[in-house]
Amino acid sequence: MKVRLAGEIGATWRRELAAALPEAEWSDDDCDAEVAVVANPPPGALAAMPRLRFVQSLWAGVDRLLADPTLPPGVPVARMVDPVMSLAMAESALWAVLALHRGFFDYQRRQREGVWRQHAQRRADEVNVLILGQGEMGRAVAARLAPLGYRVEGWHRGVDLAPLLAGAEIVINLLPLTPATRGLLDARCFAGLPRGAALVNFGRGAHVVDADLLAALDSGRLRHAVLDVYATEPLPAGHPFWAHPRVTVLPHAAALTDARSASAVAAANLRAWRDGRTPAHGVDRHRGY
Amino acid sequence: MKVRLAGEIGATWRRELAAALPEAEWSDDDCDAEVAVVANPPPGALAAMPRLRFVQSLWAGVDRLLADPTLPPGVPVARMVDPVMSLAMAESALWAVLALHRGFFDYQRRQREGVWRQHAQRRADEVNVLILGQGEMGRAVAARLAPLGYRVEGWHRGVDLAPLLAGAEIVINLLPLTPATRGLLDARCFAGLPRGAALVNFGRGAHVVDADLLAALDSGRLRHAVLDVYATEPLPAGHPFWAHPRVTVLPHAAALTDARSASAVAAANLRAWRDGRTPAHGVDRHRGY
Repeated sequence: MKVRLAGEIGATWRRELAAALPEAEWSDDDCDAEVAVVANPPPGALAAMPRLRFVQSLWAGVDRLLADPTLPPGVPVARMVDPVMSLAMAESALWAVLALHRGFFDYQRRQREGVWRQHAQRRADEVNVLILGQGEMGRAVAARLAPLGYRVEGWHRGVDLAPLLAGAEIVINLLPLTPATRGLLDARCFAGLPRGAALVNFGRGAHVVDADLLAALDSGRLRHAVLDVYATEPLPAGHPFWAHPRVTVLPHAAALTDARSASAVAAANLRAWRDGRTPAHGVDRHRGY
Repeated sequence: MKVRLAGEIGATWRRELAAALPEAEWSDDDCDAEVAVVANPPPGALAAMPRLRFVQSLWAGVDRLLADPTLPPGVPVARMVDPVMSLAMAESALWAVLALHRGFFDYQRRQREGVWRQHAQRRADEVNVLILGQGEMGRAVAARLAPLGYRVEGWHRGVDLAPLLAGAEIVINLLPLTPATRGLLDARCFAGLPRGAALVNFGRGAHVVDADLLAALDSGRLRHAVLDVYATEPLPAGHPFWAHPRVTVLPHAAALTDARSASAVAAANLRAWRDGRTPAHGVDRHRGY
């Protein structure tokens, strides 16, 4: 099996991939490669591999990969689904939900103002959480929230979103970015939430219409947003999110890929392909994930 | 059963207590009262009740109550153990542990500095958490942390603390304040922790020697402290904790008493006393809790 790496794959990744897949021949030759292991490959990189028969992404989100019009049409693509990453995402979501539910962002703001003031304390079973996206990550987040008593609902495409929004106090976005989900978190969506709801965006920056989010925060429709992803990353200096008192800015760190565990997942998938089995987590290009 | 209220018991409490215990005679007469329901009663208040035979605290911590030298010696005292409050404490502890483990306080500080930088991500099963205190709250916190994979140890009196401190990266204090625990979190304790450990103090302010804590933060021995309780409350303006970049100040809000559920607990205990059964959560005055 001749494997070619393409994109942002540094020394740690190369070491872990080599350890996880010692039988592979690591090729430096585009003409040779049967399999590509990719992390944000430059546009055109895969079109330059004439013998390419399988693409394994090291990243969970494949929106940028699929946006490359030169991506060879017949070649199957698998995305990364790493349980370690799903657990990290669930930890981050749990932290954000606890902070929003119990008002810890408010207490931290009051600390900066030197203000000592308690606010009312609600029970977890009085708080409605809506998870957008019911893939591996959405399910991992729900599995962490439910035992604490939160009332958790999930949404996926094909279901009417409006009634779920109307009852949601905390919305966690974990959707893949597709033509159908781009810009979903816009003024219309925010207007459908109860006043004082909160947003956690751990999906993609392009799910959010930034100006609509800022307007919803400033009008009080939304009381807080925890953001990890942005239309442009790193978030540009001077962007209003940085200094907004009701926005928590994380640097795309809600769930970092663990090179060791992800390499093991990739190795298992490449062996499946080599042995003629169907690799896991194949991408439906039409659906977009 | 003639019940007298004493201390900081406002209208909400009076309403909930009356609803939970409709058969009680609520007495305004010190000479009449058989039972006192108290929340930080003024010193001497209980000594003025000659027929007093049982004291139910509405607060979990009875250190101030027991410090009153006029407290009638033979009268049994019960403290408040409310499962709703224990769950609230467990939520707060889980939030603090997730924030410390995943470095969210650091990300929030970097947001204020306009800095976009990821740091390494560890798995929960690589993080050692030490809980000081193994009462209802300590057990409730452990029950929330363990399912996430954290390596949780508990400490209670009679056990050697030093070896537990040496392995602890996050210490959560939930001890009662007694002569044996006052000032426990001092320079000697901090010196026994690994460099870069973190402290969560949800017990009492007097468990901590403030100057030692500040010195440990400034030397890097401790990387962060989440504090909810203080030697003087409200935390005085100008206290160094307010503006310290590595201290999170909460206003004694990690677990607020829920008047409804606590009133139900108090009512059950008063009925037990009335019916000649032993009330739950009786205080050992010698032990101090």
